[in-house]
Amino acid sequence: VLQSLFRFPDLSRADLARLTELTPATISQLVGELIDEGLVEAAGRGPAKVGKPPTPLRLVSDSRHLVCVDLSDTDAFRAAVVDMAGKVVHRESVDRGDATGEHAVELVGGLIQATLAATTKPVLGIGLGTPGVVDAAGTVVEAVYLDWFDVPLRQLMARRFDLPVHVCNDANTAVLAEYSFGEETGTNLMVIKVGPGIGAGLLVDGRPHLGENFSAGEIGHIIVDEDGPPCRCGKRGCLESFIAVPELRSALAHAADPQQVRAEAGQSLGVVLAAAVSILDIHEIVLAGPSDLLDEAFREAALETIRARTLASLSRSDAVRIRHSTLGDDIVLLGAGVLVLSQELGVA
Amino acid sequence: VLQSLFRFPDLSRADLARLTELTPATISQLVGELIDEGLVEAAGRGPAKVGKPPTPLRLVSDSRHLVCVDLSDTDAFRAAVVDMAGKVVHRESVDRGDATGEHAVELVGGLIQATLAATTKPVLGIGLGTPGVVDAAGTVVEAVYLDWFDVPLRQLMARRFDLPVHVCNDANTAVLAEYSFGEETGTNLMVIKVGPGIGAGLLVDGRPHLGENFSAGEIGHIIVDEDGPPCRCGKRGCLESFIAVPELRSALAHAADPQQVRAEAGQSLGVVLAAAVSILDIHEIVLAGPSDLLDEAFREAALETIRARTLASLSRSDAVRIRHSTLGDDIVLLGAGVLVLSQELGVA
Repeated sequence: VLQSLFRFPDLSRADLARLTELTPATISQLVGELIDEGLVEAAGRGPAKVGKPPTPLRLVSDSRHLVCVDLSDTDAFRAAVVDMAGKVVHRESVDRGDATGEHAVELVGGLIQATLAATTKPVLGIGLGTPGVVDAAGTVVEAVYLDWFDVPLRQLMARRFDLPVHVCNDANTAVLAEYSFGEETGTNLMVIKVGPGIGAGLLVDGRPHLGENFSAGEIGHIIVDEDGPPCRCGKRGCLESFIAVPELRSALAHAADPQQVRAEAGQSLGVVLAAAVSILDIHEIVLAGPSDLLDEAFREAALETIRARTLASLSRSDAVRIRHSTLGDDIVLLGAGVLVLSQELGVA
Repeated sequence: VLQSLFRFPDLSRADLARLTELTPATISQLVGELIDEGLVEAAGRGPAKVGKPPTPLRLVSDSRHLVCVDLSDTDAFRAAVVDMAGKVVHRESVDRGDATGEHAVELVGGLIQATLAATTKPVLGIGLGTPGVVDAAGTVVEAVYLDWFDVPLRQLMARRFDLPVHVCNDANTAVLAEYSFGEETGTNLMVIKVGPGIGAGLLVDGRPHLGENFSAGEIGHIIVDEDGPPCRCGKRGCLESFIAVPELRSALAHAADPQQVRAEAGQSLGVVLAAAVSILDIHEIVLAGPSDLLDEAFREAALETIRARTLASLSRSDAVRIRHSTLGDDIVLLGAGVLVLSQELGVA
């Protein structure tokens, strides 16, 4: 019922019965409970030709607050109070400095505490998007630059704040945000998050795909050119060596022809996307990262490379689309909110 | 209930009630109906410490026949009568010669007719695995070497034989067969079908993934080496130019060092698989094709290439596995059977 109202506002009880295939009596009972909890409200009177007009129902999007945390920025940890419609109500942040390990965990705890203090509605839960590999228990298995290895972040924060806590990889939260709050999209979607590292978040047939070891979308170290620049990982020509933010900024600073650098960066992403498009037949690719780097030249070069390297019928001009997210820098933050909504209310 | 008995034979009514979360009364009713239809039988008496011993139940695997058709071989169309446990009861085949278009459709119809004549049990349905892109209506959108474009194969055969018909791309039926009748596997699985072309069948989180345009797994024209051999499609260095059966046989026939040719072929597949493993975090890769070509040197080269071209933690030795299918040449045929089972009975 909540999922129907989240996706389609202004449904009547009769609409809900049809959509959910539950009996009108059950729907009335459920809707009554949701209204009592303040989650749902009647939104005026709808039109009806004869008899009692149906009452359109709506999710009360500011009846609960979500505490959302984005740890994907190297300089600062960011947080926000967000309502159920994805509206940011209040922001907090804390400089990370060079904090790693337990110190970084402590900073996250303090940030959540400050953000919770700014909530004015019952808090549905806390969501965190973090770099690295995160398992089903919300333990950060590996986040190299934070020096986190097997850090039970969910458990630590749940104990401290006595609220539901959900933790997910930053690219995987980004794809949730794009699906729920971004441009209208299909059920197959790939968000490429370009930051200090490169991660992809995948929605496959309407469901987040995390992979066998929660490492799906770890595309940063696919080799795109064996003769490419050396990478931090010890190999040459990994995708990250071309398009990770520090690497790309540095290449642009030293380049005689910056447009050439951008085009090469876009091509290197295109090599990986050509494989992704061929394997998954995915049409919707969303870029999330600094807009000065991921500019039109970059986007065009990536798209042309996909076309040049796949079967013509897969990537013909009207099929594959690469676009920027309209959610800007808030994509991970909002995704952390969707994570809470989907886990606590079953809506997304 | 059928799905539980398909996966776990010898369950009692009480086991089924627990597994399906249905009431014992509903289970008794359902099981009664299935026994009346001959689909389920009691399999002797089970042990019980006190009271009436529970009756283990089983799917009667030879109570229905499936008519399965494999169109993926260039020389011959093959068919079989298969029981619900994947046992081949009878085989038929017809030389394709150079039949294409309507002539090829006519051959398929004749083959099905001959196969139906050999069934001795009620026929649950007809399943076909075909090369090319197949849409949700069972229309072959494009199968180049058969010169089929928008051929409504499912509709044509359903009309002619008045039975349920299901049509799917050959690599996609192969992954169904491997999941249901192959070695024990997880819920993420990729079958690489090496034949006149190269196709991959994908199981993602336990469900077949077909893609936005039913073209998922069309990996044959991903470019793996821009300086590679010319490909039929007009580009250079596509995966098919290295490992499609005619191309690989021809390269081996002319090679001074055949082991080198096999290793290069394996490497070219490894380049594509490195991307697949990184994007999907998939651990189980199954090879289906001529075993003299896809030998140990080929398999090893592919695996080494994956390791060399991905993040170490993704592809460490105990994670990614490449193996041959134990189903041999019958993989598409059996997959066509699973297609019927899953569509008609909801089991797989």
